[in-house]
Amino acid sequence: MFNEEMRFESPIRWAMVGGGRGSEIGHAHRAGAQRDGLFQLVAGAFDIDPARCRDFGTKLGLDPTRAYADYLSMFRLEAARLDGIQAVSIATPNATHYAISKAALEAGLHVICEKPVTFSADEARDLQRRAQAAKRVFGVMYGYAGFPMLHQAREMIRRGDLGDIRVINMQFAHGFHSDEIEKHSPGAQWRMNPAVSGPSFVLGDLGTHTWFLAGMLTGCEVERLCCMRQSFVHSRAPLEDNAHVMLQFKNGAVGTLWASAVNAGSMHQQKIRVVGEKASIEWWDEHPNQLRYEVQGQPAQLLDRGMGYLYNEVPGIATNRIGGGHAEGFFESWANLYHRFGLAMAAADCDDQATLESLWYPDIAAGVEGVRLLECCVESADNGARWVNF
Amino acid sequence: MFNEEMRFESPIRWAMVGGGRGSEIGHAHRAGAQRDGLFQLVAGAFDIDPARCRDFGTKLGLDPTRAYADYLSMFRLEAARLDGIQAVSIATPNATHYAISKAALEAGLHVICEKPVTFSADEARDLQRRAQAAKRVFGVMYGYAGFPMLHQAREMIRRGDLGDIRVINMQFAHGFHSDEIEKHSPGAQWRMNPAVSGPSFVLGDLGTHTWFLAGMLTGCEVERLCCMRQSFVHSRAPLEDNAHVMLQFKNGAVGTLWASAVNAGSMHQQKIRVVGEKASIEWWDEHPNQLRYEVQGQPAQLLDRGMGYLYNEVPGIATNRIGGGHAEGFFESWANLYHRFGLAMAAADCDDQATLESLWYPDIAAGVEGVRLLECCVESADNGARWVNF
Amino acid sequence: MFNEEMRFESPIRWAMVGGGRGSEIGHAHRAGAQRDGLFQLVAGAFDIDPARCRDFGTKLGLDPTRAYADYLSMFRLEAARLDGIQAVSIATPNATHYAISKAALEAGLHVICEKPVTFSADEARDLQRRAQAAKRVFGVMYGYAGFPMLHQAREMIRRGDLGDIRVINMQFAHGFHSDEIEKHSPGAQWRMNPAVSGPSFVLGDLGTHTWFLAGMLTGCEVERLCCMRQSFVHSRAPLEDNAHVMLQFKNGAVGTLWASAVNAGSMHQQKIRVVGEKASIEWWDEHPNQLRYEVQGQPAQLLDRGMGYLYNEVPGIATNRIGGGHAEGFFESWANLYHRFGLAMAAADCDDQATLESLWYPDIAAGVEGVRLLECCVESADNGARWVNF
Amino acid sequence: MFNEEMRFESPIRWAMVGGGRGSEIGHAHRAGAQRDGLFQLVAGAFDIDPARCRDFGTKLGLDPTRAYADYLSMFRLEAARLDGIQAVSIATPNATHYAISKAALEAGLHVICEKPVTFSADEARDLQRRAQAAKRVFGVMYGYAGFPMLHQAREMIRRGDLGDIRVINMQFAHGFHSDEIEKHSPGAQWRMNPAVSGPSFVLGDLGTHTWFLAGMLTGCEVERLCCMRQSFVHSRAPLEDNAHVMLQFKNGAVGTLWASAVNAGSMHQQKIRVVGEKASIEWWDEHPNQLRYEVQGQPAQLLDRGMGYLYNEVPGIATNRIGGGHAEGFFESWANLYHRFGLAMAAADCDDQATLESLWYPDIAAGVEGVRLLECCVESADNGARWVNF
Repeated sequence: MFNEEMRFESPIRWAMVGGGRGSEIGHAHRAGAQRDGLFQLVAGAFDIDPARCRDFGTKLGLDPTRAYADYLSMFRLEAARLDGIQAVSIATPNATHYAISKAALEAGLHVICEKPVTFSADEARDLQRRAQAAKRVFGVMYGYAGFPMLHQAREMIRRGDLGDIRVINMQFAHGFHSDEIEKHSPGAQWRMNPAVSGPSFVLGDLGTHTWFLAGMLTGCEVERLCCMRQSFVHSRAPLEDNAHVMLQFKNGAVGTLWASAVNAGSMHQQKIRVVGEKASIEWWDEHPNQLRYEVQGQPAQLLDRGMGYLYNEVPGIATNRIGGGHAEGFFESWANLYHRFGLAMAAADCDDQATLESLWYPDIAAGVEGVRLLECCVESADNGARWVNF
Repeated sequence: MFNEEMRFESPIRWAMVGGGRGSEIGHAHRAGAQRDGLFQLVAGAFDIDPARCRDFGTKLGLDPTRAYADYLSMFRLEAARLDGIQAVSIATPNATHYAISKAALEAGLHVICEKPVTFSADEARDLQRRAQAAKRVFGVMYGYAGFPMLHQAREMIRRGDLGDIRVINMQFAHGFHSDEIEKHSPGAQWRMNPAVSGPSFVLGDLGTHTWFLAGMLTGCEVERLCCMRQSFVHSRAPLEDNAHVMLQFKNGAVGTLWASAVNAGSMHQQKIRVVGEKASIEWWDEHPNQLRYEVQGQPAQLLDRGMGYLYNEVPGIATNRIGGGHAEGFFESWANLYHRFGLAMAAADCDDQATLESLWYPDIAAGVEGVRLLECCVESADNGARWVNF
Repeated sequence: MFNEEMRFESPIRWAMVGGGRGSEIGHAHRAGAQRDGLFQLVAGAFDIDPARCRDFGTKLGLDPTRAYADYLSMFRLEAARLDGIQAVSIATPNATHYAISKAALEAGLHVICEKPVTFSADEARDLQRRAQAAKRVFGVMYGYAGFPMLHQAREMIRRGDLGDIRVINMQFAHGFHSDEIEKHSPGAQWRMNPAVSGPSFVLGDLGTHTWFLAGMLTGCEVERLCCMRQSFVHSRAPLEDNAHVMLQFKNGAVGTLWASAVNAGSMHQQKIRVVGEKASIEWWDEHPNQLRYEVQGQPAQLLDRGMGYLYNEVPGIATNRIGGGHAEGFFESWANLYHRFGLAMAAADCDDQATLESLWYPDIAAGVEGVRLLECCVESADNGARWVNF
Repeated sequence: MFNEEMRFESPIRWAMVGGGRGSEIGHAHRAGAQRDGLFQLVAGAFDIDPARCRDFGTKLGLDPTRAYADYLSMFRLEAARLDGIQAVSIATPNATHYAISKAALEAGLHVICEKPVTFSADEARDLQRRAQAAKRVFGVMYGYAGFPMLHQAREMIRRGDLGDIRVINMQFAHGFHSDEIEKHSPGAQWRMNPAVSGPSFVLGDLGTHTWFLAGMLTGCEVERLCCMRQSFVHSRAPLEDNAHVMLQFKNGAVGTLWASAVNAGSMHQQKIRVVGEKASIEWWDEHPNQLRYEVQGQPAQLLDRGMGYLYNEVPGIATNRIGGGHAEGFFESWANLYHRFGLAMAAADCDDQATLESLWYPDIAAGVEGVRLLECCVESADNGARWVNF
């Protein structure tokens, strides 16, 4: 069971860049971070409009002077305070991730950044080097990675319950952009603009999530891949609203990834199926408390979160906040990740390497890999869907 | 969308009785109440062991002097403070609900109480009168009532999308007590003891939830009912671990209710199906973001939370905390209810009747009805399952 | 695997009463009976209109002289032939079942009759006595009883995989009569007419099916029951279009049965859930190749027809006509039953008692029980839903 | 509704090559062909062992002299009879399809052949030319193509309910060969032998089915494709037990195809999802009576076979053999196809071109396309999974 008493005497003083009024993802960060008493929001540069930022921050209970007009001011002025921020979460459009993250690390802050962390793998590696040098935690918000049943799946694979991995099929394919909704939805507009969104749309927005989860589950490393991408709504070109990828892994496994925003009529359909020589598992983010487990020659099994038959001695599986049968959801996954970020930051602050090494969380290395995936996919797709070494 | 900015400048000062270390439901109350900045935990009588209470309260960040040895001390000493508590949630075994609630109302506090609120309908009505006289909010923790898709279902019925209601089938039937687990589980023991749990086990623990939801959805009032109950684990007698009820409603509708803790192998299986002359709806608490809607002569439809086709102008439907496709869960339902409790308390404090009347939440009247259900069921079951007028 | 070679050198010469042009159930009988080469349709009194009967029979390939104007003529004239019929299936409205069955037995024929076999249990017992005296097979067309996964369920219960049975919940509740469709559907009209349909509508038409299956699975015998029934379409009174039954079994188990034709928007929803002290099973006729098996404390399991982990040594389980994964359906269940009827008739014809005793099929004893259920339910419902001993 | 009276006065005299004792597919052919009185089995060369063939044929009720030792004898001797066979179904290992089909056409017979019809597209085109010249019907046994809900899907796409087609995802991926079961299963052995099975295993055995259905539904034509295939059980090389294909269609649509026999723990998982600009449909062969229909911005819909809201004026949709709610299965699909084959043969025999043109069925042209798919996939996979024009 989740231990509510595992709190910090003084929560980590925390700020956000972006995620202001009307931002769904901003709310997700605040709800996740503050769930367990490990983080407290004390500052923010939530908005490019300073007045709106101040109004919003005040409504959230901040000292108005700590609702800043821009992130550089925030980092500078907070650094001058005894009670200044210790960590920052970045929930801005993709184009700005690199610069803000770099500035945050330079300001001595722990960083939690939305994915994709940068436009290029070089930039991502640069952030990785900087974070290591500064001994700061750099978390990447692969927000689905906190679901307990994924940690169960990961442990099952680690223990060999599936045998050698043969096939990994991934998809995250919704239908919300079947039409050109960006005409009327400002929130959707920047994602179609390569200058702001980066070299890809659905691969970066959706595909990297599922890709990250597959790596987390299996540890399989890609050897080469082949990608085709399309802009079914033509005005989105060169950014794709649909992409299919075929992958070959170093261990001989193969797989596919389907990312789409034009899967008409679908909600998320984020699913991962891992096929081993003995058994398969399948997980679906819309019903995240269940894990389907199919052993060849046996009846298919449906595992439920919170049950005694899970590998509950493994951190991440038994951190249920409520008993099995009750539905946990998206916010619990985020809170579980922020919980891990908080523990890592506390360990980093006292240079506790043992704890740091024992703590799994989506880190900047994972961020680098995600950007590499996008680079390879774009290179493949833009060259006739040819095979590209990873 | 949920409005994160709708916070109180000064959150309601709030305490708990019960719900201490190891209590899952205690955690649910704290997580729900503090989600939106409307409540702040400042005191508690969490435990019958004063030292453990103090330790636990301190770990949660309370001033140690406000972790009280008993609820009477808490009510008395807090009343003497300028910054004393304004509201209290009661998460103790059933036998104590009446006395604690009464004392809380006498101390001028708003009350949120676990169900069943009392052992007898007379006691429940007494609490109802006292709350009215004191102009205090009395919420009852029917914790599933905050799910948006239930409010969608309620509105569909209200608008006549189903036509006249004909059949209401309800069930909440898990299998976790198929064996005599109370031998080894202290948390389960008190529920089997009529002196502590009251005259029923699964009807009170499970059945009242679904029953309350059905009433919330349809507004149908019971005319008479017939109940059979069993103690399949014999040591539980006279308390039932399984019960079936047949019901006749005043409008001519009929229905059934199955409550069970011996439905071997099941998780929750809390489901409600409402059948109207034109269409039916079905909801399942383990997958609460969906609502099945079946119009006679048309393909069955699956409605999803967060979508534009819902009756989003109705409070309670559009209060999504995250977009459709993402899974919301149990904690969001509780937070949604505490949100309503908070708004009601603020309105009561300034005697704002208009707001109070516009705000739906599970109140003491609902608590009274729940206890009446139990009384009638027990009377029926203990008299050969004969029909009893409600 | 099903053995296609297990055919009779000379198929049983077989006729039908009723089931003529436009009759869905007539087609089901012919398709089921003739599937395996055990029966051959050689005569029929399909229709009350002699010309239409002759035309229909001819179209089906009969000798026109063996398409009879009425069943009495058929029984008399066929008896006079050396190659006369040996068995007859009766698919007429309920009111005529008794007389036709009686005449068929008197003519020395094996009988397969639609359910309910008679209006009264006395009549049904009379048929039972006559069949015994004449040493004729009397099958009752509980057409779902041939599904292999039900035989798997039955064997699991017999072997104690579920432990003692505690709860049996049954339902067969479609929505096709939510409106007064009988106004325009002649095929539906007779079912609403007590003179033709008998004392009940949905209990007899639907409820007896599921009830029979539950008895087949568990062997549990009813001690007493309590039934409420309604005519939501008022013109159907006194016949019910919806009924709920609560049951107490002799072994201490309890259960419910919901039969309805006004479950708006539903297809069949014929489901049986059997709860034991260790595990539960659930089966649904719309997806008959699967069986859900839930052991308390273990992941839920989904068993599939045709798999090696089933109790394949038991007749009825391994009689797959196609491998697992492929969908078998309604017609295979009927063919499986007719197969058993055919084997029983062959055994009866040579007085092979050993085979007869080893062969399970829905027989007249089951027919008697079905009629008793209806009698008890009607007695209960028409007396204020009071409890009635079975 | 299916019209049982639509029979031939004299059923088509029909034989089989292959499909003898123990052959599941042989039984499927016989059950499908003889279901509706259009075909009658009168001869066969079921087995390479003449004695076993004769014994088997006799058990099925054939004249022993018409259970032939080999297909050439059968074709020759039957041609000499006045009542000789008119049509033959070929259910032998792949390597023999071409020669037997050619001989059958030369003998003036209508042919129904298992897929893949030949090893090479050239051979398949040769059969196509021969069938055209001889004016004989040549059906290919894509046995899933008879399911009514697929015809509903096809008609929805044809009418534009989905808008332009964007994505077609296909899979047929079971797990029955996760281990090297061919060591002990003679029936599985030939499929792993390229000399008997042809240049592919799962692409030919499984993938062509789903590929054919997708073409039947959408009419989309492949422009180019890219395929990777593996032999996870190494002894199967060069034949693949797993393959993934990416496809680009001439109309701009894209898609994927996953064929596997090592999808551990799965039954069939044959699924097709067609995504259009407005809506998507999804069909699954294990639950073939349902079709999921998802319109962007509306609740997902579940369509059921047999319902009035389907496009029942279209042949193939309304040919239900039993009402909605009841499960139809694999055998009904085969019977529906054989029904069409029978009508086509009758039309061909009287040179009725109008009927022939109005009758859709899987013909030799479809067989040619299936073989071309295999050729292209193998060429791609065996050249580093490069793109190949179709």
